[in-house]
Amino acid sequence: MRIDVLSLFPGMFAPLTESIMGKALEKGLLDFAVTDFRQYSHDKHNHVDDTPYGGGAGMLLKPEPIFEAMDDLTAQHPGPKRVILLDPAGKRFDQTEAKQLAQADHLVFICGHYEGYDERIRSLVTDEYSLGDFVVTGGEMPAMIMIDAIARLLPGVLGNAESAPTDSFENGLLEYPEYTRPPEYRGMAVPEVLQNGNHQLIAQWRLKESLRRTWQRRPDLLDGLALDQNAQKLLAEVKREARTIDAGEPETD
Amino acid sequence: MRIDVLSLFPGMFAPLTESIMGKALEKGLLDFAVTDFRQYSHDKHNHVDDTPYGGGAGMLLKPEPIFEAMDDLTAQHPGPKRVILLDPAGKRFDQTEAKQLAQADHLVFICGHYEGYDERIRSLVTDEYSLGDFVVTGGEMPAMIMIDAIARLLPGVLGNAESAPTDSFENGLLEYPEYTRPPEYRGMAVPEVLQNGNHQLIAQWRLKESLRRTWQRRPDLLDGLALDQNAQKLLAEVKREARTIDAGEPETD
Repeated sequence: MRIDVLSLFPGMFAPLTESIMGKALEKGLLDFAVTDFRQYSHDKHNHVDDTPYGGGAGMLLKPEPIFEAMDDLTAQHPGPKRVILLDPAGKRFDQTEAKQLAQADHLVFICGHYEGYDERIRSLVTDEYSLGDFVVTGGEMPAMIMIDAIARLLPGVLGNAESAPTDSFENGLLEYPEYTRPPEYRGMAVPEVLQNGNHQLIAQWRLKESLRRTWQRRPDLLDGLALDQNAQKLLAEVKREARTIDAGEPETD
Repeated sequence: MRIDVLSLFPGMFAPLTESIMGKALEKGLLDFAVTDFRQYSHDKHNHVDDTPYGGGAGMLLKPEPIFEAMDDLTAQHPGPKRVILLDPAGKRFDQTEAKQLAQADHLVFICGHYEGYDERIRSLVTDEYSLGDFVVTGGEMPAMIMIDAIARLLPGVLGNAESAPTDSFENGLLEYPEYTRPPEYRGMAVPEVLQNGNHQLIAQWRLKESLRRTWQRRPDLLDGLALDQNAQKLLAEVKREARTIDAGEPETD
């Protein structure tokens, strides 16, 4: 896979090499480049923005630098591309989208910063994404997050230590609580079942706690799942235990 | 406001100084520090993680380094804190949460990286947030996004040029299309109405296009809004125009 970024702040992407993407680059699984599109300015002061038609505060990215940067990219790397704009009006980025984007040969991210952009830039774009309903200074940090989420899904990037398959969302449930040493710390103990080494009991406890956390915090995630009989039984237990606690009765097991 | 981050990768936070947070720091509106909690390791190899009780792939952050880093932070900066963990099970971060967090005196972000963490670390936490249903390498980039979104809301941070009040979500609608020079580029023209300078017509066009984009892409945002009579009339026009186009008839105005 190849990933290009068009940004006025190429230095902002340095942290990616400390993330999983650094591993993908080292292993040659990914080519990555950031183009500072200010070099495509037509202006002796290197401006890439201008005031909006119709008035209003703020500056807008002009079309020419972005179009010409894309012309050069396309000349150097012909072939299919997905050209991504980070925009509040875009589709919500999630793990399903990440998996789908990880199949592409070439991704291009266009990042605005501070300003908005001339509407005609959207004509270059194949996919608009939003990370959520909040406002940030520019597209750089959201693009970094998307790149990180995508890069870790490329075959061969994650080692066993990073344990992709047990992450939240991979099985549709939130992760169960995990504990490491010491067995007791500041009055808080590791649950007995995790210390006794019975694999079957541990697996049941983990599934039940995953179900409990998902039901308590993200019940919407349960809607889309086909739970097997064992999981259904555990979820029923979780709900019964919650009712017992709500009613103020001591929890019995 | 003061913001502290506990992270094993303090260098990853450098890009924040190129974002709006750099301005907040320059203007003295924000104190910001990243603590590498590896310095609180008890181990001659500087390990801060260990294997999970009950088995399984991956390593977990041990409780001691985080607890002791928090002890030191609390000793140096007593007073109320909101201690934030980025976790897939957390509350969805959005602009409303950003505004609320921007009121706090002291925020502390705890960032995991690669691994999970010992469940007891959650006992230090006042707020768990998620940016969305996707998996990234660590909490660092999501924390940066939250810090950026919060810092730009601090009074005095944004200049007029960054035009906070017209951003998407600020009035509950997506932003209208914007254009700058040239008036025609690669066959695409700036809409006449924006070039003629009639402020009232421009304001109506912009509101209508905001409503159109919101209705087409994020109809859920309209549910929570009390639209005035003018906006209701424009939204009805938008819907009528969509039906005309759907029916294959030429659009008349």
